[in-house]
Amino acid sequence: MGSTGVRIAIDAMGGDHAPAEIVAGALRAREELGVKILLVGDPQQIEAIIPPRTTMADLEIVPAEEAIAMDEDPLNAVRRKRKSSINIAMDLVKNQQADAVFSAGHSGAAMASALLRLGRLPGIDRPAIGTVFPTIKAGKPVMILDVGANVDCRPKFLEQFAVMGSIYSQYVLGTEKPRIGLLNIGEEDTKGNEVVLRAHQLLRENTQINFTGNAEGRDVLSGEFDVIVCDGFVGNILLKFAEAVGGVILQILREELPQGIHGQIGTAILKPNLKRVKQRMDHAEHGGALLLGVSGICFIGHGSSQAPSIFSAIRMAKEAVDNQVLERLQSQYQILQNESS
Amino acid sequence: MGSTGVRIAIDAMGGDHAPAEIVAGALRAREELGVKILLVGDPQQIEAIIPPRTTMADLEIVPAEEAIAMDEDPLNAVRRKRKSSINIAMDLVKNQQADAVFSAGHSGAAMASALLRLGRLPGIDRPAIGTVFPTIKAGKPVMILDVGANVDCRPKFLEQFAVMGSIYSQYVLGTEKPRIGLLNIGEEDTKGNEVVLRAHQLLRENTQINFTGNAEGRDVLSGEFDVIVCDGFVGNILLKFAEAVGGVILQILREELPQGIHGQIGTAILKPNLKRVKQRMDHAEHGGALLLGVSGICFIGHGSSQAPSIFSAIRMAKEAVDNQVLERLQSQYQILQNESS
Repeated sequence: MGSTGVRIAIDAMGGDHAPAEIVAGALRAREELGVKILLVGDPQQIEAIIPPRTTMADLEIVPAEEAIAMDEDPLNAVRRKRKSSINIAMDLVKNQQADAVFSAGHSGAAMASALLRLGRLPGIDRPAIGTVFPTIKAGKPVMILDVGANVDCRPKFLEQFAVMGSIYSQYVLGTEKPRIGLLNIGEEDTKGNEVVLRAHQLLRENTQINFTGNAEGRDVLSGEFDVIVCDGFVGNILLKFAEAVGGVILQILREELPQGIHGQIGTAILKPNLKRVKQRMDHAEHGGALLLGVSGICFIGHGSSQAPSIFSAIRMAKEAVDNQVLERLQSQYQILQNESS
Repeated sequence: MGSTGVRIAIDAMGGDHAPAEIVAGALRAREELGVKILLVGDPQQIEAIIPPRTTMADLEIVPAEEAIAMDEDPLNAVRRKRKSSINIAMDLVKNQQADAVFSAGHSGAAMASALLRLGRLPGIDRPAIGTVFPTIKAGKPVMILDVGANVDCRPKFLEQFAVMGSIYSQYVLGTEKPRIGLLNIGEEDTKGNEVVLRAHQLLRENTQINFTGNAEGRDVLSGEFDVIVCDGFVGNILLKFAEAVGGVILQILREELPQGIHGQIGTAILKPNLKRVKQRMDHAEHGGALLLGVSGICFIGHGSSQAPSIFSAIRMAKEAVDNQVLERLQSQYQILQNESS
């Protein structure tokens, strides 16, 4: 595939399998998606992984002297390690040398670095982490935000998440009139804690979005909502539960299916189909989460990400750039601010 | 099975399938568990369901003139409909004519009725709804509370939930030294919102329980915790998500497994094993939730409960009575109060 001109800065040192899996996923993205890759990190380590005779077209290594470890305090580390790979990758976006940034490293550090280096979008109080779940309806994913950036949310933060999620769903996921839900414990307007009750009112009054009411836990995967907003405390617990539950079910399948002689035969016959089941359930783990609300396209991957997840996240980043998500968020909020001032 | 002397009051009018499925499940419980059943509701409707020539030993019909519908405001309905089946069932426990009560009706109404008729246990600020999830480790269930009674919780409520959950896990589920977790967004002591941070301290200082730290969303089904406490907002969302996710996975299995000719043959061969998979995943839906912290043993079932779930909830209620959960909770909190006074 030829170059599309989209440039992605990659924190090559971030993640449990960095830099090997990061570089492998990035090289595949360059190959298949036609993006330009800027690998940020220790040149020696990165070069050692790149296979010999690899062309350097659309591939650049940007040196970084340091990396932030998973157990460091994010804000301190980002401030102290000015030349860390995540900071230098963010700066590439800030200086318009890259269109998007990806890191599978310390997600708190990535967030802190994005806030300090890129800043917030005008009109946004708090950036949120958004992630896309598959639903029971094939091809109808749901975006959940916030899944961990803000443990305590004010009602207007949830409203801002809804507007940002709506734009993302419309322009990147291709949803025509995204149905926005507020994660809650009942369908009725009168249900919920204080923050959610007030957020419900704000969402109902907001004419920019298609608010369709409260979404219960059972509605998350039903395909009845395109975007569901919640605070980062409940969102993070839900995300981690959802990611783990796939593994639990696969474990049950592994224990129960091959039992008995019929079980062993049937399981052997079904092997390719079971692989597809696994792929569909793994979906949630693939790709990255998007940091929405900072002045740049910024994707965050799992620490455990391997090459396929890296590739998938880079594809999402490219789609966000191609669909001008940042520009749309910026102009949306400029309109909002003008209206309210 | 002969009579054990345990008497269970059943709200025969509560639930989507009342009274038919309620009565069916209760009759089976009388048969197999040897409990005495007190069916509370409209005698005509109840008698119409009981098969002819059924012995009335250990079976009593207690008339109630009214029932509370699913869409009524719980507190108002419980106050206004004094002779509703749920109120009369609660009174049977209050007046020591029954040892436990079960309802699959309006759970808010059941809770309100329990609070008004039975009252809180001394030392408990807020009763909590506890439910038991299967984990990845067979035979190692985890109790989650609160799953919906209290949307906003103060730190000391979470501490009280932990003590109640620990007693239940020890004496009903047979866990030797229940490992208590606090649902949170990270393992570190410094993670979480304000309520959870303070609750973490209280739990750590409480010498009555075996607090093992924060439990993340991924730890819920890991089998590493016996009891996990959270506020009723996040707990309810988690519960409803968990209940729905089983159905989503079964749907994916149904779509993917029979594809192709190999798929059809393999699926046919595996039918009995797939049924076992379904049973293990359904587990979360069976049985009832326990209302912990009121002066009586009170189980709440899903509105959609059918006979097997009713039976399962009655069995749990009987186990709670047999293991003197109420007495243990009462004495535990008396000790606590004496210590602090």
